Amino acid sequence: MSTILLDRSAIRSLINMSEVINVVEEAFKAWAEGKANMPPKAYLTVERGDFRAMPAALPGFAGVKWVNSHPFNRSHSLPAVMAVLICNDPETGFPLAVMDGTEITYCRTGAIAAIASKYLARRNSNTLGIVGAGCQAYTQIIAHAELFELTSINAFDIATENMDKLISSLPEYPIRKCSLEEAVSSDIVCTLTPSREPIIKRRWVADGTHINAVGADGAGKEELEPSILRDAMVVVDEVVQASHGGEINMPISKGLFTVDEIYATLAEVLTGKKKGRTDSKAITVFDSTGVAIQDLAVAKLIFGKAQERGGYPVLGLV
Amino acid sequence: MSTILLDRSAIRSLINMSEVINVVEEAFKAWAEGKANMPPKAYLTVERGDFRAMPAALPGFAGVKWVNSHPFNRSHSLPAVMAVLICNDPETGFPLAVMDGTEITYCRTGAIAAIASKYLARRNSNTLGIVGAGCQAYTQIIAHAELFELTSINAFDIATENMDKLISSLPEYPIRKCSLEEAVSSDIVCTLTPSREPIIKRRWVADGTHINAVGADGAGKEELEPSILRDAMVVVDEVVQASHGGEINMPISKGLFTVDEIYATLAEVLTGKKKGRTDSKAITVFDSTGVAIQDLAVAKLIFGKAQERGGYPVLGLV
Repeated sequence: MSTILLDRSAIRSLINMSEVINVVEEAFKAWAEGKANMPPKAYLTVERGDFRAMPAALPGFAGVKWVNSHPFNRSHSLPAVMAVLICNDPETGFPLAVMDGTEITYCRTGAIAAIASKYLARRNSNTLGIVGAGCQAYTQIIAHAELFELTSINAFDIATENMDKLISSLPEYPIRKCSLEEAVSSDIVCTLTPSREPIIKRRWVADGTHINAVGADGAGKEELEPSILRDAMVVVDEVVQASHGGEINMPISKGLFTVDEIYATLAEVLTGKKKGRTDSKAITVFDSTGVAIQDLAVAKLIFGKAQERGGYPVLGLV
Repeated sequence: MSTILLDRSAIRSLINMSEVINVVEEAFKAWAEGKANMPPKAYLTVERGDFRAMPAALPGFAGVKWVNSHPFNRSHSLPAVMAVLICNDPETGFPLAVMDGTEITYCRTGAIAAIASKYLARRNSNTLGIVGAGCQAYTQIIAHAELFELTSINAFDIATENMDKLISSLPEYPIRKCSLEEAVSSDIVCTLTPSREPIIKRRWVADGTHINAVGADGAGKEELEPSILRDAMVVVDEVVQASHGGEINMPISKGLFTVDEIYATLAEVLTGKKKGRTDSKAITVFDSTGVAIQDLAVAKLIFGKAQERGGYPVLGLV
């Protein structure tokens, strides 16, 4: 037996957003039903960044994502975040595959936001606001376009070149540059910045808006004025992780929001244990911090397709 | 930049026990001096076994070992334990290498026991007892032979074929089959079994014996009668891990031993903060549970040698 190796270009050729959305939604349901297992992440802190080990098991598939976060990597011409996935057979522990996890991370992050929008945004939403046109913006657009008829994608970034690159890289989508306030006036808003100060004002957020708060992924980060959370139905992917490093972490630490004010977990909404949007005027917020079952669900999909296609290089580990 | 791939045969061709002993000892010293970082392992439990993510950072090198333990794998003709290592540049997080971790696990486990013996066994020790002649026995013998003039290696296993295989595989060492009691009468004894009952009797252990208790690596496992621990200087690799899953875990849970009775950590002994053996009549026990800095230290050594040699396959992850 050999371990299949899938580099970044192999992942790109095998991945498909519509399928990713399906498997990520199924994985969240499996998790809610006790059919998936996901222990807490292990964090390794080094001088210029950190690493996270994210283990998870789904029916028939297990593994770990090992991902760094080095915010100052631009000076090395390297991405801030690079991920590797090791995938195993849960029956024997055999390492089935080692694969690029960076592309999978982008895709699953876009997918889960679009899934949240499916349950929390207004059904007839047709404008998408992008706040932060960096590498996370691409999959947010592609995933939302799978589930919504988007007539306008309103993109803002403090760096004009990021907006220009986004528009030229995705010519098939109706993306236009706009101000921050205009981006926030969209039906669905995805916030994707590394901000440590609230940049989205409460007064800009209209009734009926759904916000996917994706940027905050560590203690001290926040993008939304806390009054937005107080006025919104707040749904999180994982309560403990969101409380410590998600959009709600700073409001909680300042006493402006409490864990009891979380409306539901996304898994509760997907399984119907809690209702999604019922009021067209409600503001809804999905606090996305990223969980390992998303990655493993996509890795399982990709591994199955790679096995079918065949011909990939292998590594002799056993 | 590419990520170097090292399969099991590459590791075998690059690894050398004498160097492994040196780098593992240096890593423990670095850890004691606050120059290494090792957060707790993350455990993922599945129906037929478990997985552990073991992250660590050493000066200039970081990474994670992902290792399973599936005790019933013999029916699948697979080893119970298989490990993969991902190695990163701590400055940028870049994944420098993905390598087989199984061979490294065996070697570092032998190395740390031999290092413990160097500080805790009598200097003139020349007989080595092996209790359990399975896959861990090989590196215990090779590592101890690096540091001691062994005149007799007394090996016991409940399966005769394991002893025969050990003897025929290592013809250059003076290994002989013996009873359990005879193995325990050696100057240095390595216990390497998956036992969940004490199999080593207190009355068999002579004054001056040093025992490396390696087998117990999870809650419920134990090899030594607790009275051995009570009469011995007990040194552990990591206090919390040893308390929960090392040789001392069962005696602690039964109230027969306490954390306060641990004499020292191995790092304290290696750095001279606590003395090693001072009394030729003392019984000493090293409770080895295995820590990630051992693996990363060896991975760093191997990676440096692989870079020098060149020509290994690579994986495009970034």
